[in-house]
Amino acid sequence: MADPRFFPASGPHRLADIARAAGASFEGDGERRFAGVAPLQSAGPEEVSFLDNRRYAEALRATGAGAVICAQAFAEQVPAGCVALVTAQPYLGFARVAALFHPRPAPVPGIHPTAVVAADAVIGEGTEIGPYAVVGAGARIGAGCLVEAQVTIGAGVEIGDHCRLLAHCSVSHAILGSHVVLHPGARIGQEGFGFAPTPDGRFETMPQLGRVLLGDHVEVGANSCIDRGSQGDTVIGPGSRLDNLVQIGHNVRTGRGCIVVGQAGISGSTVLEDYVTVAAQAGLTGHLRIGAQARIGAQAGVMNDVPAKTDVMGSPSMPVREFWRAMAKLKKLGAGREG
Amino acid sequence: MADPRFFPASGPHRLADIARAAGASFEGDGERRFAGVAPLQSAGPEEVSFLDNRRYAEALRATGAGAVICAQAFAEQVPAGCVALVTAQPYLGFARVAALFHPRPAPVPGIHPTAVVAADAVIGEGTEIGPYAVVGAGARIGAGCLVEAQVTIGAGVEIGDHCRLLAHCSVSHAILGSHVVLHPGARIGQEGFGFAPTPDGRFETMPQLGRVLLGDHVEVGANSCIDRGSQGDTVIGPGSRLDNLVQIGHNVRTGRGCIVVGQAGISGSTVLEDYVTVAAQAGLTGHLRIGAQARIGAQAGVMNDVPAKTDVMGSPSMPVREFWRAMAKLKKLGAGREG
Amino acid sequence: MADPRFFPASGPHRLADIARAAGASFEGDGERRFAGVAPLQSAGPEEVSFLDNRRYAEALRATGAGAVICAQAFAEQVPAGCVALVTAQPYLGFARVAALFHPRPAPVPGIHPTAVVAADAVIGEGTEIGPYAVVGAGARIGAGCLVEAQVTIGAGVEIGDHCRLLAHCSVSHAILGSHVVLHPGARIGQEGFGFAPTPDGRFETMPQLGRVLLGDHVEVGANSCIDRGSQGDTVIGPGSRLDNLVQIGHNVRTGRGCIVVGQAGISGSTVLEDYVTVAAQAGLTGHLRIGAQARIGAQAGVMNDVPAKTDVMGSPSMPVREFWRAMAKLKKLGAGREG
Repeated sequence: MADPRFFPASGPHRLADIARAAGASFEGDGERRFAGVAPLQSAGPEEVSFLDNRRYAEALRATGAGAVICAQAFAEQVPAGCVALVTAQPYLGFARVAALFHPRPAPVPGIHPTAVVAADAVIGEGTEIGPYAVVGAGARIGAGCLVEAQVTIGAGVEIGDHCRLLAHCSVSHAILGSHVVLHPGARIGQEGFGFAPTPDGRFETMPQLGRVLLGDHVEVGANSCIDRGSQGDTVIGPGSRLDNLVQIGHNVRTGRGCIVVGQAGISGSTVLEDYVTVAAQAGLTGHLRIGAQARIGAQAGVMNDVPAKTDVMGSPSMPVREFWRAMAKLKKLGAGREG
Repeated sequence: MADPRFFPASGPHRLADIARAAGASFEGDGERRFAGVAPLQSAGPEEVSFLDNRRYAEALRATGAGAVICAQAFAEQVPAGCVALVTAQPYLGFARVAALFHPRPAPVPGIHPTAVVAADAVIGEGTEIGPYAVVGAGARIGAGCLVEAQVTIGAGVEIGDHCRLLAHCSVSHAILGSHVVLHPGARIGQEGFGFAPTPDGRFETMPQLGRVLLGDHVEVGANSCIDRGSQGDTVIGPGSRLDNLVQIGHNVRTGRGCIVVGQAGISGSTVLEDYVTVAAQAGLTGHLRIGAQARIGAQAGVMNDVPAKTDVMGSPSMPVREFWRAMAKLKKLGAGREG
Repeated sequence: MADPRFFPASGPHRLADIARAAGASFEGDGERRFAGVAPLQSAGPEEVSFLDNRRYAEALRATGAGAVICAQAFAEQVPAGCVALVTAQPYLGFARVAALFHPRPAPVPGIHPTAVVAADAVIGEGTEIGPYAVVGAGARIGAGCLVEAQVTIGAGVEIGDHCRLLAHCSVSHAILGSHVVLHPGARIGQEGFGFAPTPDGRFETMPQLGRVLLGDHVEVGANSCIDRGSQGDTVIGPGSRLDNLVQIGHNVRTGRGCIVVGQAGISGSTVLEDYVTVAAQAGLTGHLRIGAQARIGAQAGVMNDVPAKTDVMGSPSMPVREFWRAMAKLKKLGAGREG
């Protein structure tokens, strides 16, 4: 079970409540108690597991878990004595049950005596500000937020309700919606990479006069960077999630629900429509438009617009089917057999 | 116009002063007043815009801006009532006008009471040291510098005049010239990646006994890392600019005016001559020499020296012309048509 | 010689002691004194150099160093008056001599008055806690550790003896062995990138209920990120070293002595066996197994298991021999000559 030093548990919980949280149906005694969650391979009779990938079907049949959240197709494979919690979305169901057993601690309202908070900053009700946090002039932080140790919030920044700014992140020149999460070391709002060459070989900075706007429920990974706009704003649409070590250049705009995986980078002024996925270490040049639900493959190098619902891979990128055909030919070249 | 919460404006300014700042000529009333800058698409009659890319020529013809900085070739396309500010370098001109309207605030001289500054550290006149900054023994910081919140300056570090060390950056084992900028989370001077394998399968650290030298006007992006030298120094030449999430390995040396774009990496002991450009996510192996004005393409993987004024792309990299020819052939392979 | 502002020297030392530290044999006066170390090209008669790469043999013949650590094959090439310190492992020998002349300063025991340390945290004997460090409830830090300025150690974290946590790093939900080093800005233990899509287009976070376990002598580079496990732990095996800006996803496990070079990334649940090397900017997808002593080339994109002792390159990756053959063919295509 989860290490109680790090993950205090709220259980036990009744099977009926667990099923309701999971949005799952079951047969059996709804009063049966469970203590926590665990993986199939290690769970015991007081723990709940899940299966969402047939790769682990064997682990399902051998599990010691007391209950397993799974799709109907696997329900009859759960061992005797184990309750199947049946749902069409077992991964989502398990996320909700895990959260039931290990609810995220609420912020402890109050401002640590060591926090430096500007006199005209406004802090919402129920918000926790941690040791050595710095909140600048005129900043406004919403209700029920968590601002961890050593976070720096610049002058004028606006932060909505129920946001979490984790240790060591910094945010300036920005407006955040509600339920925004900045993971440790995230850097929001700094000056982007804009400068004009002079005739005598120097670079003069182009003032970056825009902001960063993060929509509701946006999450930004550890040590990721989002530069503010040069004249307009850099905008991350509601619900979008960025993994760690991601770079977002100035004036990028994304729609809702975009996913940008670790170490990917999006150059300035590129636009992502809704629900675009950019896989790990991919790179997009500037001034592109990526259509809704497009999927950019890992390590792809995108230099042209990508239509909606199109999957691309490679550098320079091409539609996935073409890519694999080209790679198969290349592999034959490598194996010494002509195309 | 720029959000006044984040970008206080110094205007209004006279057209004649704006033109002088831009290095531009114009026809019209030099006393006409302007309030700020804005993009072509949204500017009003009291705002100044610019055009430096013919892609936006249509926006120029439709603009509501009161003045537009542009090249002679576009001067007759500015709408009636709009003043053309003509210069051969509109981008540079606009940078100077934007800075005129939104001058960077000067440091507020003084040391925040919470800053921990070693007794023998020397702080120059007019320098601002922010909350929770830490300045180590024997460090010397020049005049007119800005050291933001939570910056860590290690023992013995020397920093020239008019430098800006932004929130959360750290610098040790380093000597910085004047007008150096470290963006948030930049890491300067830490131990590089050097260790000796032992016969019994362990690694012993090779002491890294060099420093980092940053020339005048060098800028280092957010969360970028520059490791100190192992015996000699890691040197970034004057005026060079590094974007975010860049990695510079120990003993790298660059000439003046080099540009390293986001997430690129340069391995140890590689040398860049003057005015080299390394595009986003490119990687250079160690012990290379990259000639002056060479341009390394995005995501390139450079494993050999590159001559001066040469453009390379690909991984492994090759001259650009060869690269595109190879890609065209590869694309045909992918489309099912033989070379 | 090393800049004494940054690298106090402990010399002079006797040649006999230097040889013993290097594990080297020599002919000459063991009482001869040396002041420090320096590269071949700049060393003087009171300094010790080394040669471990025949590329520098010419520098050996011309050196002014008083002693050079080298293999037997080069011993007769040292100039007259220069002592050859002969060992089969000159690089390792030099590392030990450099450490003899510039021993790493021991922690200065004590807790800085500005450090915020939870009342129930346990700090071992001889440990140094620097300004503005924050140590959370129930954390346990071993003996002889160095915790630099502004480091954040989360609740319940366990840290072994002789660890070094450098400026601005953060660690939560983790257990560290002994002699672990976290370089500036390293991020350990934060929530990994796990979330479930909902039918109405939102993302719900999958609680990440695992930890990070770092074995003895693990080192993590500047601004690198290691996410905690989702149910099990993310584990880095003893002696492994990660360079800067590396991303380690949740549930990754490595064996001992793994090397991950700058800006590489390993996706969730991938397993590395012992002594795997992942070169700069490489990327590995999730749920892979990489066999012992495999070597992943720079910028490789690994999408399948790699057998032990296998070298791969390319994206998608292939055995090195095939890769170079394919690249040679591709280069011919680019040069306009058919395969």
